[in-house]
Amino acid sequence: MSVLLFYVMKYKQSEPENPDNDRFVLAKRLSFVDVATGWLGQGLGVACGMAYTGKYFDRASYRVFCLMSDGESSEGSVWEAMAFASYYSLDNLVAIFDVNRLGHSGALPAEHCIDIYQRRCEAFGWNTYVVDGRDVEALCQVFWQASQVKHKPTAVVAKTFKGRGAPSIEDAESWHGKPMPTERADAIIKLIESQIETNRNLEPQLPIEDSPEVNITDVRMTSPPDYRVGDKIATRKACGLALAKLGHANNRVIVLDGDTKYSTFSEIFNKEYPERFIECFMAEQNMVSEDGVSQMALEDIAMFRTIPKCTIFYPTDAVSTEHAVALAANAKGMCFIRTTRPETMVIYTPQERFEIGQAKVLRHCVSDKVTVIGAGITVYEALAAADELLKQDIFIRVIDLFTIKPLDVATIISSAKATEGRIITVEDHYPQGGIGEAVCAAVSMDPDIQVHSLAVSGVPQSGKPEELLDMYGISARHIIVAVKCMLLN
Amino acid sequence: MSVLLFYVMKYKQSEPENPDNDRFVLAKRLSFVDVATGWLGQGLGVACGMAYTGKYFDRASYRVFCLMSDGESSEGSVWEAMAFASYYSLDNLVAIFDVNRLGHSGALPAEHCIDIYQRRCEAFGWNTYVVDGRDVEALCQVFWQASQVKHKPTAVVAKTFKGRGAPSIEDAESWHGKPMPTERADAIIKLIESQIETNRNLEPQLPIEDSPEVNITDVRMTSPPDYRVGDKIATRKACGLALAKLGHANNRVIVLDGDTKYSTFSEIFNKEYPERFIECFMAEQNMVSEDGVSQMALEDIAMFRTIPKCTIFYPTDAVSTEHAVALAANAKGMCFIRTTRPETMVIYTPQERFEIGQAKVLRHCVSDKVTVIGAGITVYEALAAADELLKQDIFIRVIDLFTIKPLDVATIISSAKATEGRIITVEDHYPQGGIGEAVCAAVSMDPDIQVHSLAVSGVPQSGKPEELLDMYGISARHIIVAVKCMLLN
Repeated sequence: MSVLLFYVMKYKQSEPENPDNDRFVLAKRLSFVDVATGWLGQGLGVACGMAYTGKYFDRASYRVFCLMSDGESSEGSVWEAMAFASYYSLDNLVAIFDVNRLGHSGALPAEHCIDIYQRRCEAFGWNTYVVDGRDVEALCQVFWQASQVKHKPTAVVAKTFKGRGAPSIEDAESWHGKPMPTERADAIIKLIESQIETNRNLEPQLPIEDSPEVNITDVRMTSPPDYRVGDKIATRKACGLALAKLGHANNRVIVLDGDTKYSTFSEIFNKEYPERFIECFMAEQNMVSEDGVSQMALEDIAMFRTIPKCTIFYPTDAVSTEHAVALAANAKGMCFIRTTRPETMVIYTPQERFEIGQAKVLRHCVSDKVTVIGAGITVYEALAAADELLKQDIFIRVIDLFTIKPLDVATIISSAKATEGRIITVEDHYPQGGIGEAVCAAVSMDPDIQVHSLAVSGVPQSGKPEELLDMYGISARHIIVAVKCMLLN
Repeated sequence: MSVLLFYVMKYKQSEPENPDNDRFVLAKRLSFVDVATGWLGQGLGVACGMAYTGKYFDRASYRVFCLMSDGESSEGSVWEAMAFASYYSLDNLVAIFDVNRLGHSGALPAEHCIDIYQRRCEAFGWNTYVVDGRDVEALCQVFWQASQVKHKPTAVVAKTFKGRGAPSIEDAESWHGKPMPTERADAIIKLIESQIETNRNLEPQLPIEDSPEVNITDVRMTSPPDYRVGDKIATRKACGLALAKLGHANNRVIVLDGDTKYSTFSEIFNKEYPERFIECFMAEQNMVSEDGVSQMALEDIAMFRTIPKCTIFYPTDAVSTEHAVALAANAKGMCFIRTTRPETMVIYTPQERFEIGQAKVLRHCVSDKVTVIGAGITVYEALAAADELLKQDIFIRVIDLFTIKPLDVATIISSAKATEGRIITVEDHYPQGGIGEAVCAAVSMDPDIQVHSLAVSGVPQSGKPEELLDMYGISARHIIVAVKCMLLN
């Protein structure tokens, strides 16, 4: 790290956020560390994103350095990143493997067999150097050589020893994560101090100032949605079209794909802005696969709801989908937009305004007896149920949530009060952690509100067509039965 | 596949479940396929488990074959499995890479560069062959050679072409996942039929019958828990001790570790039964890290709740932890046991009986005004709150859930009814998808029950000690305030 900071990296000490600085990714947070990777194996992926940005979007001189442990390199995500970096010729990226032989539980599989790391890095297309991790001159040399290599990322496999130079601690298994007794620590600090040969102050080199100004705030669509009420279009396609439209609004809108561009319609963006489309292939690590009935997730909403400050959109038609994409582009924090494969009818006019946390009341009259809350595909079933019940003189209020998180609690509670406290939630998701539980929790302190939740109860057992249909959620028929049961009680 | 089935695999056609059969792992389900891997990249990991079992536990002659696609090999999980198989010298495992150049979205990174696959497999320690995937004799030869290789798994990199031999379809990008028009399909079927040279019926070779009898039902602890009420012990340690005890009860109890054996106390099992302890290193793919405050999951319960038929235990003390381990060993489907790092006091006698879906009422009297529901570490805060409130003549009922899924709805509702409909849930988990929402959903149709949920609301911003404390959940002080607020309303 001292070699990197004082001999290799170009860095303005007074401005850690300066975009011209070289980047440094490590598993600890210090002011000059751009990313602290809490989860082992994520650092190199993050560094790949920075290096891709530097090379292809910023086209700037800064380099990206990522320091990793040998134990961490057992993570599959590291090898996804290794393949990505060489495929995209990220020659501004340097990964340092700190091979100190020891993990938390003892010796690691490859121990100090440096050649195993070397062969794996080379097989994944990296320019690879093997060095003694304590040899300052050798380190300076390989980092300089790395800067001269074109079209390949560089791996520096550094052989190191934990506690090097400390008597009976060097390379010993029992010291991982343990504090050292004070007396012993004092003696070792003295030993290290006695080895310092100079008091000269070292400073990092200044960066080359050639990174572009970037503005990613206030990203707006240039025109309202171009759909008419009654049009039929799948929200996944509307999402692909909206992404391409957003790409027109700001040249820092980029799209990453995990070999599903034809299913997600991100291919539309790819055709228009190929230079901003990054194909990551089947290496999605934690990506939620949602490609058709067989691979559609029924726990995705539960998972994204647990992420602090994550916004979850579940748009119903093409118009609301386009608004969701535009709102997500300007929202703080992570956003998740759930789209649907089947074509659905456009129900909103292009002039309709959408906000995060604002539900839409689609049907209401003074005689409403039950509030039915849906999102996405289930809204159509709720509307169909409302039409059918209307023929029997039963009136229901229908709400389209638009965002699941944050939830429009005010609209939910006022609608419930207007319908004698009765709520039915309808979702194509498992009951756990979905819309039903979110609504139950939101109204749980109100003794006048009862909630009945309709959700997908399990995986189809036989693959019969009607079971597959249920995988998309609950039909109007189920809602009609639930409404009548609730009115009987 | 025809070469595998008719020339290589040893297999009793009439008994697909025969334990002596060779195993076959593929992404489609046919009667002779042992595992259909819905998620890309999981197949080789499953095959590793089978091969490890065959070599080290069954010590039987059967081999394991895993057919994978080239696109799938971009998944990091594949390389975790590759490293595992060579580290454990799984010479009874053969992985076939079907390199047909094409993914769903078009050409894959390595296309038909067979040598890239070869180098990567070799670098990960595999005995590797490159073959023409249509050359029956060459395939027979490499599969035979593989059976003679000791101490290394074998990779067969097979170069293939999609739609081989079909005019204008072979190796074309546009046919992935598309049905072929009937007329064209008929012509191609005729073409293929014209190439068949013999009508001889082929049958697979019979397996060698040397796999042992295995009994993994009715796994019972040989003695009751050896703790006294008032003892202090961390449930993670009690879990490690219980695993070792279970290892004594059945020799098919095995433990897998992801470089956390000292934190999870699975080291205790390792010391007693090293031959049944498998160190997987830092390659846990989807494993929930729960090693101390900094890495403790606050969304794990939400995630496991969404898994159909998954049982979630959250034991409070050492006695209930040991029972949870024993119940999990005999439960159908996946089980998740959440244990805790700090030492907690033993509150159950060794004679206490535990069942899945059965909560424990720890404090109750006729004057109870609120039911407080906790699990694990929060139970102690609830008990402390009860003690403090008792001094102020406020009585609360305290419930220890023991299992979060299934939930003991009967006990929850009867307790709520006995405490004027008031419930407070307390959990060290995000509010989304946790105990609070589960309870809200369970009582949502009952107008007489109100639920107030206490949960961890977010990530600590500054790392200040009191925020870290909150990461473990809610303190007795919070519960006391919540009880008083609820009684005021």
